[in-house]
Amino acid sequence: MSQLKKSWVDSANSAETPFPLNNLPYGVFSTAGSEPRCGVAIGDMILDVTALEDEYFEYSAEPVFTSGMWNEFMDLGSEVWAEFRSKLNEMLAEGSPYQSEIEEHLVPMADAELLMPFAVSEYTDFYAGRQHAANMGAILRGSPDLPANWLHIPIGYNGRASSVVISGTPIHRPNGQRKAPDAEMPSFGPSMRLDIELEMGAIVGKPSEFGQPITVDEADDMIFGYVLLNDWSARDIQGWEYQPLGPFQGKAFGTSISPWIVTAAALEDFRAPTPEREKELLPYLDGSRDGLYDIELQVLMQPEGGDTASVVGETNYTRMYYSAAEQLCHHAIGGCGMNVGDLLGSGTISGPTKTEYGSLMEMSWAGREPFTLDTGETRTFIEDGDTLTLRGTAKGDGFQIGFGDCVGKILPAVKWPK
Amino acid sequence: MSQLKKSWVDSANSAETPFPLNNLPYGVFSTAGSEPRCGVAIGDMILDVTALEDEYFEYSAEPVFTSGMWNEFMDLGSEVWAEFRSKLNEMLAEGSPYQSEIEEHLVPMADAELLMPFAVSEYTDFYAGRQHAANMGAILRGSPDLPANWLHIPIGYNGRASSVVISGTPIHRPNGQRKAPDAEMPSFGPSMRLDIELEMGAIVGKPSEFGQPITVDEADDMIFGYVLLNDWSARDIQGWEYQPLGPFQGKAFGTSISPWIVTAAALEDFRAPTPEREKELLPYLDGSRDGLYDIELQVLMQPEGGDTASVVGETNYTRMYYSAAEQLCHHAIGGCGMNVGDLLGSGTISGPTKTEYGSLMEMSWAGREPFTLDTGETRTFIEDGDTLTLRGTAKGDGFQIGFGDCVGKILPAVKWPK
Repeated sequence: MSQLKKSWVDSANSAETPFPLNNLPYGVFSTAGSEPRCGVAIGDMILDVTALEDEYFEYSAEPVFTSGMWNEFMDLGSEVWAEFRSKLNEMLAEGSPYQSEIEEHLVPMADAELLMPFAVSEYTDFYAGRQHAANMGAILRGSPDLPANWLHIPIGYNGRASSVVISGTPIHRPNGQRKAPDAEMPSFGPSMRLDIELEMGAIVGKPSEFGQPITVDEADDMIFGYVLLNDWSARDIQGWEYQPLGPFQGKAFGTSISPWIVTAAALEDFRAPTPEREKELLPYLDGSRDGLYDIELQVLMQPEGGDTASVVGETNYTRMYYSAAEQLCHHAIGGCGMNVGDLLGSGTISGPTKTEYGSLMEMSWAGREPFTLDTGETRTFIEDGDTLTLRGTAKGDGFQIGFGDCVGKILPAVKWPK
Repeated sequence: MSQLKKSWVDSANSAETPFPLNNLPYGVFSTAGSEPRCGVAIGDMILDVTALEDEYFEYSAEPVFTSGMWNEFMDLGSEVWAEFRSKLNEMLAEGSPYQSEIEEHLVPMADAELLMPFAVSEYTDFYAGRQHAANMGAILRGSPDLPANWLHIPIGYNGRASSVVISGTPIHRPNGQRKAPDAEMPSFGPSMRLDIELEMGAIVGKPSEFGQPITVDEADDMIFGYVLLNDWSARDIQGWEYQPLGPFQGKAFGTSISPWIVTAAALEDFRAPTPEREKELLPYLDGSRDGLYDIELQVLMQPEGGDTASVVGETNYTRMYYSAAEQLCHHAIGGCGMNVGDLLGSGTISGPTKTEYGSLMEMSWAGREPFTLDTGETRTFIEDGDTLTLRGTAKGDGFQIGFGDCVGKILPAVKWPK
């Protein structure tokens, strides 16, 4: 098991910080009135790499960090990714000769507002958690049997990139069409079954060529890093709209991501295998590496005015059946060009027991079994004013790697018609 | 019925040109070795508006036409759209005092390569043709009955923007997973049921705010213009993958659009109503304007080495049940933010008789009824080397408005594994 790497930034050496030198996740921040700047988290500080670019990080003719997004940096390719990370390690390590030069470019995280770390090119959401798929089958179709294709294909659908927002962005409860099973006609109004989905998001950092497939190992090399992802879902809208072409407005009103991109490099020591295959996959889905990561995940829920957030679900990314690399390979196999900034949601991560479920739909079994929060209140789906938080941690020996919380508060539906 | 407007560009006064002064569609072109430039079609010429921007079209501090895409122009808003169009009319009208100044900036269309006219932000495909939906039901599920939601919702799914290419781009037959109904296991290989879908594409020119719904009339105002759209489809891949989350790799290998954006302003005189509603739509889908356009559409097919293209389908955009404005309104109703450059495919346009079908799946009734080309060859689905062309025409009094052909040739599948 890997050990804590020590930094001259004291707060980065704590066993509790999500941002030790081992992590070095990438984000975008602003301080009072400043333009968005690219930064790297270290302990309770952010290293302002936009300020340091000219002197230390000149990898291309044009500066890449002034854009206030990580896309241009990703576009420089994996040799630069490694070189940059190696340089950061050198600069921030205990005893580094750079300390006196760069210390003034550390900004207290407490003073910074975190912004979208990258421009989402396109967003795809998968359905690759087996327990979740079985639970949804049991709830919606009366049987936990998987769809016929499920053990052969990492099932996914294209989502809406414009719906992806940074942690902390409030989300309005969506209006939409829904029809109760016994109703004659559909009606229009606020969703009454508002839910979350606990997911990991994989960020594509290298493009693939239009018309050209890729292997699983090539796909793995294309993944720049990971975020936590909350795929907010309006179950009633989704249930009425999704046949025959899949989810649409039930998923388009908001998708929250955590603020820090944790690189694949930082997670390397936490690789874990996908589960044993019940049916052999077709050879194009073969890869040589363990494709999942041992990341502990939590869902927390806090009512408006409540003083504590209750943990309502706890699971692990290793509960997935398909890896992000397998998903990305499948995504491109017919020739679909993948681009820098594409975001792939893993699908809801649920473990085998009720405490490990990654959506309220499963936790409350479609609303039939309310659960109780630490405040004593009960919930089936989300109520206005509730705040939902996702948290993820990879645990090393004496250190941990975190993503920053992925938080969203639900506001009442917009009045419509105006 | 509107009349031909005469231009000093002689070729624009022909009853046969798709590009009279009444049209003025927007495209992007390059001539031998040049950077992409924004241009306006007039007769058999292109007016180079990038070259004229400084002198005649200065609507903002930064030039918008040097980008070689129409997105920045669209972003200036509808007052500028109208001002620009009015100026173009003035400059190109018969007797215009501008003729001597701008004539040197006319480029013969024959010397130009046409490029993508705008950057596609996100691509959504709808399923809003009633005859097509009924046909697909009859073919796939044994009944022409529409899905329960179909008469209430303009059903759509998010597609893949990276798959959208300009007319003339060759498309590789995709590889993918498919499973014959009687097969035990799926297999991997080239699609054997390669198809087209005849559609119109609506281009969003004004954004909507994240979290805020829009009305149908607001949506109508947001639509900048239209293109022809061929939603290439691999029916076998789609058939195996699409449950429960909709089409994915069966639709992601290519979507071709015609080269010229025909503006909503140019089509204004051709507005036509949507058909009578079998079931009353929910009030949020009410608009005050006729939302369709009277545009005659053709599908042509030409085998490799064949010297003629056969018309295999002929229909009209007025066959749609839902308008683009209704689709866009529904798209944003839950708060999904819409952006400049978003592209909405209408869904396959099919009329009530076999000669009016907009896909080979329907023309050959899922391959059961081969049809014959003018060359004597027969087809069910697309064979390697076949070229498919979509053509669209709005007919006025002594003039017509065209889009430029939307052409694509199918190349053999990429060898995989390499």
